[in-house]
Amino acid sequence: MKKQILAVLAFLMIFGMSVSAKEKFAKEIKLQQPDYSGGKTVLQAMKDRHSSREFADRQLDNKTLSELLWAAGGINRDDGRRTVPTAMNSREIDIYAFLKDGVYLYAPKDNKLVLVLSGDKRAATGNQEFAATAAVNLVYVADLEKMKGGDNEQNMMMAAVDAGHVSENVYLYCASADLACVVRAYIDGQALSKLLNLKKSQKVIVSQSVGYKK
Amino acid sequence: MKKQILAVLAFLMIFGMSVSAKEKFAKEIKLQQPDYSGGKTVLQAMKDRHSSREFADRQLDNKTLSELLWAAGGINRDDGRRTVPTAMNSREIDIYAFLKDGVYLYAPKDNKLVLVLSGDKRAATGNQEFAATAAVNLVYVADLEKMKGGDNEQNMMMAAVDAGHVSENVYLYCASADLACVVRAYIDGQALSKLLNLKKSQKVIVSQSVGYKK
Repeated sequence: MKKQILAVLAFLMIFGMSVSAKEKFAKEIKLQQPDYSGGKTVLQAMKDRHSSREFADRQLDNKTLSELLWAAGGINRDDGRRTVPTAMNSREIDIYAFLKDGVYLYAPKDNKLVLVLSGDKRAATGNQEFAATAAVNLVYVADLEKMKGGDNEQNMMMAAVDAGHVSENVYLYCASADLACVVRAYIDGQALSKLLNLKKSQKVIVSQSVGYKK
Repeated sequence: MKKQILAVLAFLMIFGMSVSAKEKFAKEIKLQQPDYSGGKTVLQAMKDRHSSREFADRQLDNKTLSELLWAAGGINRDDGRRTVPTAMNSREIDIYAFLKDGVYLYAPKDNKLVLVLSGDKRAATGNQEFAATAAVNLVYVADLEKMKGGDNEQNMMMAAVDAGHVSENVYLYCASADLACVVRAYIDGQALSKLLNLKKSQKVIVSQSVGYKK
């Protein structure tokens, strides 16, 4: 009887652990290192770069999602510097990824996506209907507190330039990987700030929809 | 005697024509089509992208200069659309190239540089000493009058995002072609506006130094 109780306890412990491990796993998405040799040349990708608003109803595979986020703001050097420049190396841009199952924050150091909000919130990233259908909607948020030099107005301008750096890397990766992509300026920044529970110093700059071609 | 006078007149006409042709030639620099197959992959260029402030004292060859400008804002489709996106397809960014012999405006349609100002004005593009030594200093100027939608503040922000698109394409081309490159935010926009004789609606956003590595 004691043995049976121990067996049940052991079962519950293992089951419990596996549930918690599964739950923990669901709260983040581990990303891969990019395959630097894959895809098009820089100039060919620039030749093919364009905006597209038609997306297939299919989620990105992990390799594609990984390369997309790394292009957007990954670490490309040992000292933690990024694939995109930032004013005075402020690294003020955070990248939120709105996927079908939830909203994630990209963590470049750990090369993973961390769950911020469960559920499909893609429609919140733009008024245009296609936003809800794109596999990923990236939202670029600048934290002005992180910026060195400049007054507030200058810093907003530089944060916008830096968001442009991110957006263009995403465009070129999409051109290289044959994905559809469009950057969107006229979004409801206030509603997004509330949804993401942003600090006062954080400003939503632009959003970008990405997915497989229809 | 009459024949001699005619000969002299003919000589002067031909000489005069050749001088005017030469002068006309000096006022613009014809650019080549890019070699799309050359250089690195997009992801490799993103891996190698970095800012560098050390430039060799050597001017860019025509192929490199051509690819640089095309990457920055060239036409990549039959309908005149560009290698970089602009808000509502406003195409509000003009690209000035400060070379050793003068300041040029990039004309994407004709794929050429048109002289705006003679002489070496590179030092005017930035306070940092290296600006004067980089083979090219690009200056990105937004004409807010060309922008559709949005109020003035929104348009300034979107113009800054669009300048970031340009700057990132230049970074990636430089990474691909092994050139040194740095974007510079803290520049004297007012002095540059005066030098370039800009309209009130035109705003200097950022400058970017490019050259061969030292």
